[in-house]
Amino acid sequence: MSRTTSAIEPSALGIEPARPGHVYLLGGGPGDPGLLTMRAAALLQTADLVAYDRLSPAEVLALVPADAERICVGKTVGRPGWDQDDIGQLLVNEARLGKAVVRLKGGDPFVFGRGGEEAIACREAGVPVTVVSGVTSAVAAPAAAGIPVTHRGVATGVAFVTGHEDPSKPESQMDWDALARFPGTLVFLMGVGNVGRIAGMLIANGRGPDTPAALVRWGTTSEQEVLAADLVSIADEVRRTGFASPAAIVVGDVVSLRDVIGDVAPLAGDPAPAEPLLSTLSL
Amino acid sequence: MSRTTSAIEPSALGIEPARPGHVYLLGGGPGDPGLLTMRAAALLQTADLVAYDRLSPAEVLALVPADAERICVGKTVGRPGWDQDDIGQLLVNEARLGKAVVRLKGGDPFVFGRGGEEAIACREAGVPVTVVSGVTSAVAAPAAAGIPVTHRGVATGVAFVTGHEDPSKPESQMDWDALARFPGTLVFLMGVGNVGRIAGMLIANGRGPDTPAALVRWGTTSEQEVLAADLVSIADEVRRTGFASPAAIVVGDVVSLRDVIGDVAPLAGDPAPAEPLLSTLSL
Repeated sequence: MSRTTSAIEPSALGIEPARPGHVYLLGGGPGDPGLLTMRAAALLQTADLVAYDRLSPAEVLALVPADAERICVGKTVGRPGWDQDDIGQLLVNEARLGKAVVRLKGGDPFVFGRGGEEAIACREAGVPVTVVSGVTSAVAAPAAAGIPVTHRGVATGVAFVTGHEDPSKPESQMDWDALARFPGTLVFLMGVGNVGRIAGMLIANGRGPDTPAALVRWGTTSEQEVLAADLVSIADEVRRTGFASPAAIVVGDVVSLRDVIGDVAPLAGDPAPAEPLLSTLSL
Repeated sequence: MSRTTSAIEPSALGIEPARPGHVYLLGGGPGDPGLLTMRAAALLQTADLVAYDRLSPAEVLALVPADAERICVGKTVGRPGWDQDDIGQLLVNEARLGKAVVRLKGGDPFVFGRGGEEAIACREAGVPVTVVSGVTSAVAAPAAAGIPVTHRGVATGVAFVTGHEDPSKPESQMDWDALARFPGTLVFLMGVGNVGRIAGMLIANGRGPDTPAALVRWGTTSEQEVLAADLVSIADEVRRTGFASPAAIVVGDVVSLRDVIGDVAPLAGDPAPAEPLLSTLSL
């Protein structure tokens, strides 16, 4: 009964190539290149210019034509990244030159991806823009570690929250009381450095110290690592093990289901930053 | 500069075919067949048996080999669906016969998909199981309507909640006070029939009556429809227009961004139930 995969023609799924003069905001998925959508793959194949983040998987970038421009607009330690206005301007300017422009983002463009700001920049400039949703790591990273973010009788809701707030805001506008009382699973993205504060504020506002919690680093990739502990001790465990970003923090009883479900994803791809593909456009 | 798409070989992305004796829980995405992941496509191509829901897009089911079994385990009006234990038993039994078994679910398996229960059924039976996360309609349906579920300065978090609760539970265990106070966007799935109660409880617990709200029906597909109104009047608008399921309900200031961003998804595919593909397995 063994079968083999065969090549998939994007047009069979009604997918059109990228259009000149158009901007596409693509979700690149959580890390496993297999979790790229068919539509995103076809748009990468037909892009003239791809602006990508530092964590974009190399296998995904390999879909881009050899003669297309690739620009890394992400931040690297010790090297300043592009600011958001510059990225919006880049997308607009290049589309106006008649290029098919793809903005490749990790996860989903609208789940903490600042895709809304880029869509607005295009709209305000009169440049046509298309959004292609992706698999968010807020769901897929816990899933790969055997943690369903919702589960009947355990969690009938799930909330995604940024682990760090907008630094331009006054000190903590986060409503910790409401977050602690949210009736379901909490997933914090990009908050490993804040895990002590997150856990402390949740406990201070009523979540039980023994609430199961887990961090999933490089979720869905071959480098995936999982750290699980009670909410009260998770920050100590992070310090003790040197567990580092990028990771999703999951808080809630669903974390215990990992003991039954276990690792359930085909971990794939190399999450290492695609550093060899540096900007081909001078600033 | 116009380029054409070319066929994509799943093995180029490190994707392996479905294995005999194994169960795969796949997210089929929100409706647009282009939002299927590469990994899900390759597994459908190499399945011996596919158990699918009533809303699975026909283009997605068309990837399944002609000689593979297709079983619709979803509910249809006037016809009883399979219960969850029966579905779990089906997956286990068929995998034990040595088949490569795919369970195709709408959206993501772990976002209200009851994938956790099916994963546990497999684990308890000693049958190997893999979860392939998908694009959830809780993000993609609002996105297609120009609504980013998070947006800097507007919503730093988003919560997904089921619009109907487990009927086996005593009347409303929903903590409406905590939900109303959640610091971010609320997305209710499968709750069109409850929209009056949802809006009323949110307002009674402190959300402003003028909070922007929207329903997105058949999001990402060619049949997409959007209804937007203030929270206080959304239920009346649903009644007046006869707006029906399936739809995601979005509540929060991000809904206003639709006025700037507009429709941004390539609406594709026919969301009509794949009824011609009835069960080929007798019960």
